[in-house]
Amino acid sequence: MIRPHFEKMGGLVPVVVQDWQSGEVLMLAFMNAASWEATLRTGVATYWSRSRRELWIKGRTSGRIQRVREIFLDCDEDAVLLRVEQVGDAACHTGRRSCFHKQLAGGEIRIVGEPLFDPREVYGT
Amino acid sequence: MIRPHFEKMGGLVPVVVQDWQSGEVLMLAFMNAASWEATLRTGVATYWSRSRRELWIKGRTSGRIQRVREIFLDCDEDAVLLRVEQVGDAACHTGRRSCFHKQLAGGEIRIVGEPLFDPREVYGT
Repeated sequence: MIRPHFEKMGGLVPVVVQDWQSGEVLMLAFMNAASWEATLRTGVATYWSRSRRELWIKGRTSGRIQRVREIFLDCDEDAVLLRVEQVGDAACHTGRRSCFHKQLAGGEIRIVGEPLFDPREVYGT
Repeated sequence: MIRPHFEKMGGLVPVVVQDWQSGEVLMLAFMNAASWEATLRTGVATYWSRSRRELWIKGRTSGRIQRVREIFLDCDEDAVLLRVEQVGDAACHTGRRSCFHKQLAGGEIRIVGEPLFDPREVYGT
């Protein structure tokens, strides 16, 4: 099985997640070998949660899974680009479409985009 | 100065680099605090080369620099998205537009895109 070079970063590779239709960058996540294999086997984006230290099927709690449409490795084969169909409205746990919603402007952070769901309703916290 | 949380990954943050007009993902790189500050100060994308262990002004050798148009942090502020104007034809040292040119298809890698310059002429190797 083709796989990225996990050994360069202690068993993990960074994964860029992009909306396959709009091209919007939705998030940056990490995969280990098990999440890579699960993603290829199931077609549903599965990452490694560094904070919880466990396999993380993106959207398992919220229903907002990511169906993988295209997979690319970079030239050095130590980074992954997933082009996905984002099921539901948003990728970010804040309810926004993209995790990259904090724009630097004039030395300050400006939040771009409105929440599309209420995280308290989805995650119950 | 606003800065990402470098401490979560030993002083580095992953940086997604996207063409600011087409939305194409060009590469994945890393920054340390010094490269972050240089990027903000100069407006030219500056990374940390993990292999050479030095500040890396992207395009310093080839002339194919990246002018930074927009900067985003993600929700956790531990990843960066640069939307850039790629000067010249290509971001990848292989001469291709994007470093993410190795597509997984049918269990094999298919190279997408033709070289736009000859790396031997540019890098002399």
